[in-house]
Amino acid sequence: MTEQTGASPCTARHLNHVAIAVNDIEETIKFYQDTFGAGQGEIENLEDQAVLAALVRIGGSQIEFIQPTDPEGGVARFIERRGEGVHHICFEVEDLQGTLDRLGESGTQLIDSAPREGLSGMIGFIHPRSTRGVLIELVDQSTAKR
Amino acid sequence: MTEQTGASPCTARHLNHVAIAVNDIEETIKFYQDTFGAGQGEIENLEDQAVLAALVRIGGSQIEFIQPTDPEGGVARFIERRGEGVHHICFEVEDLQGTLDRLGESGTQLIDSAPREGLSGMIGFIHPRSTRGVLIELVDQSTAKR
Repeated sequence: MTEQTGASPCTARHLNHVAIAVNDIEETIKFYQDTFGAGQGEIENLEDQAVLAALVRIGGSQIEFIQPTDPEGGVARFIERRGEGVHHICFEVEDLQGTLDRLGESGTQLIDSAPREGLSGMIGFIHPRSTRGVLIELVDQSTAKR
Repeated sequence: MTEQTGASPCTARHLNHVAIAVNDIEETIKFYQDTFGAGQGEIENLEDQAVLAALVRIGGSQIEFIQPTDPEGGVARFIERRGEGVHHICFEVEDLQGTLDRLGESGTQLIDSAPREGLSGMIGFIHPRSTRGVLIELVDQSTAKR
């Protein structure tokens, strides 16, 4: 493996978290604590994403759990279609607006063309159609919660 | 967030990689290099898992890409059912055999009751039925490739 060149539209720095869509966030956090030694997680209500969400530390990494609050919302439809499981992964980047601009110019399909506030900081999503089926969130590393 | 206690059956230390199931591993690696500045990845043929696989560095993290080689294999069926996307996540642990034993005793459903050789080192899988839909791989951190 060699180092990245930095010449790409998005210079991803680090995996900030993996997000898992679940039906019962409290029961899931308890399971991951009891089974994998996960830390505490503060559950927040993200009304614009129609989820309850919590960032939980497992060792040196972070898992985000999300539970839909609206049966018509995207996460509820995800679970209905595919069952509980990994919903997205999130990379830290510098200069989120510039990264989104460059990705858009390179033909990558974006969900967000401008940063917006998320659980992990200022974020933007890339459409899975461009990334071989992976919903990728980018978080501005200067605002990222770790 | 607080520190984990270490009293759980599996003390997960660090996310080693996120694995993505794809139809064309070469084309996918090129896309992730061109778009996200991913490093080089050496593609290996894992006959027992019926996949071509490569670990690729993105910033400080690792992504594994897997492409099915057998249309009857598990990864081919995964893509047929759900499309390309995140297939599993992998945590590093100490004492993999002991961890698998303790998980089994705690009622967690395992795919592997003993460590076996994988792309990332000596590994064992936990069944997604026990983990809210997430296929979790554990890798012995003393053998983990990073």
